[in-house]
Amino acid sequence: MNPRESADGRIRCGELGEDRLLEQLLPSLPRNRGVVAGAGDDCAVVKSGERGKLQLLKTDCLVENIHFTKKDSPERVGWKAMARPLSDFAAMSGVPEFALVTLIVPSRTTVAWVKKLYGGLEKAARLFQVAIVGGETSSIKGPAAISVAVTGVVEKGRWVSRAGGKANDDLFVTGRLGGSLRGHHLKFIPRIVESRWLTENFPIHALMDLSDGLGSDLPRLARASGVGFELDEAALPLNTGCTPKQAISDGEDYELLFAISPKDSRSLLTRWRKKFPKLPLTRIGRLNSKFGPSRTGSIRDSKFPKGYVHFQQR
Amino acid sequence: MNPRESADGRIRCGELGEDRLLEQLLPSLPRNRGVVAGAGDDCAVVKSGERGKLQLLKTDCLVENIHFTKKDSPERVGWKAMARPLSDFAAMSGVPEFALVTLIVPSRTTVAWVKKLYGGLEKAARLFQVAIVGGETSSIKGPAAISVAVTGVVEKGRWVSRAGGKANDDLFVTGRLGGSLRGHHLKFIPRIVESRWLTENFPIHALMDLSDGLGSDLPRLARASGVGFELDEAALPLNTGCTPKQAISDGEDYELLFAISPKDSRSLLTRWRKKFPKLPLTRIGRLNSKFGPSRTGSIRDSKFPKGYVHFQQR
Repeated sequence: MNPRESADGRIRCGELGEDRLLEQLLPSLPRNRGVVAGAGDDCAVVKSGERGKLQLLKTDCLVENIHFTKKDSPERVGWKAMARPLSDFAAMSGVPEFALVTLIVPSRTTVAWVKKLYGGLEKAARLFQVAIVGGETSSIKGPAAISVAVTGVVEKGRWVSRAGGKANDDLFVTGRLGGSLRGHHLKFIPRIVESRWLTENFPIHALMDLSDGLGSDLPRLARASGVGFELDEAALPLNTGCTPKQAISDGEDYELLFAISPKDSRSLLTRWRKKFPKLPLTRIGRLNSKFGPSRTGSIRDSKFPKGYVHFQQR
Repeated sequence: MNPRESADGRIRCGELGEDRLLEQLLPSLPRNRGVVAGAGDDCAVVKSGERGKLQLLKTDCLVENIHFTKKDSPERVGWKAMARPLSDFAAMSGVPEFALVTLIVPSRTTVAWVKKLYGGLEKAARLFQVAIVGGETSSIKGPAAISVAVTGVVEKGRWVSRAGGKANDDLFVTGRLGGSLRGHHLKFIPRIVESRWLTENFPIHALMDLSDGLGSDLPRLARASGVGFELDEAALPLNTGCTPKQAISDGEDYELLFAISPKDSRSLLTRWRKKFPKLPLTRIGRLNSKFGPSRTGSIRDSKFPKGYVHFQQR
């Protein structure tokens, strides 16, 4: 073991943060000929036997006292557990098909609580015609956790990664941002319909869902695309009572963030308002060519609060 | 709410056990046209775009202090976390292709531990050419948990459920049983090669892997097939130092249990010994027609120790 490995060995996951931990793990992951895009985007993209299609794979988990609490209604926790990976399908413009549920709960958990949780999982699945085809349960001497893995498909020419953004692209978000922990995070609707409409009608360069907050997620999109960004704070679509800072850093909005050529922006806005009159679509900035390894945003780091990142304090 | 529901509501998962909990949950799960066989067998079976093939889906998890302890080497825990769902592919005679890993660990977990865990996950995946295409991490204020979801394929005429056993079928197990917790449970090799060979060469009526122990798993196979069984305790292939009781109830053997017509048994044994000279194959009993809802085995309940069932004390 060389000295550097030894130093690494003492670092805790909580100090490193999820992104940097994954950066260390991803390069060595085994791949095979079926992998189109492995870990690192919202879903993995692999071969599908179906002509003209690819398969999308995603797993996501909720942990008690991290993503929900005992006070939250089990139906809503179940809804959220299913809706989060479905939101990642929206982020790739894919169609989810099948889900596997892993439920890790203490032995003392009541069957009634589990049934209500499944009620929420099933409700979210049914809304998008997703079949729940597997259910594993395990006990734990500690907090509950629910992990949901989802498979689905996307047309070969239609999946959108985070990496296709170009300098001068306009940046848009759906819906309103901030204050999700007041309740939205337990009842949001994955933007699958909207995402499918977008890629059916416009060339979308880069797309993702806002799970950790604009402050974390926008830099990820810019970094993956190898560009910088400018954010128009004054334009941010705020939820009632929220400040721009909250819109940037609260997280759990589960809205779409995407980059599109400015020549398409006007037509997009016009057609969007006709198609989705109740859901705002807002231009919040643009991508630019100022890409740098340490600083991709036009707002100084000290002013740009981080979104929610696992293993870091809120 | 009727009185029965109300009574149900007070029951704890630990009192009900995993099988009966799943029985209550499965009927209401949403399905869609792509589902060939949903929850209840070793893997879910769904449509595949590929001509002549079906897709298999499986998820499985390990929880600290339930399935492993802090004293276990993280490489071996990682190996086990991947090998368990792969063993379910063996149980359906399928070929695993892609895996998603969900890692739930306390913030204080060292990066070195996580890297070693991934080393084990990767080693097991590479042995079967499985690509790890997604990695999610979350923190927890409690024990660690690792959930692995795997997708793969099987030829339409070749997947074997638990439900096809017929009265008079011979019952076979691979390898030796009992005492797995002495170490085997952290380093077993999923019997995918053996399972694929079996279905390539013989009509296998029913097949599963022994994860909870023969005492739990054989009644499951019999029940799914609508038949009874007779177990020849004296024939059980015992691991060194193990009693028949241990072979029946210890669990975590990850060997194959299957039913085959007695007319094929002699040829099977001859060819098996040539193909897999180091791995025993043993006839341990037969299926019979004495199926009953409360008693499927020929050994009285009081004498037939239960295998490992989640939510029940070991």
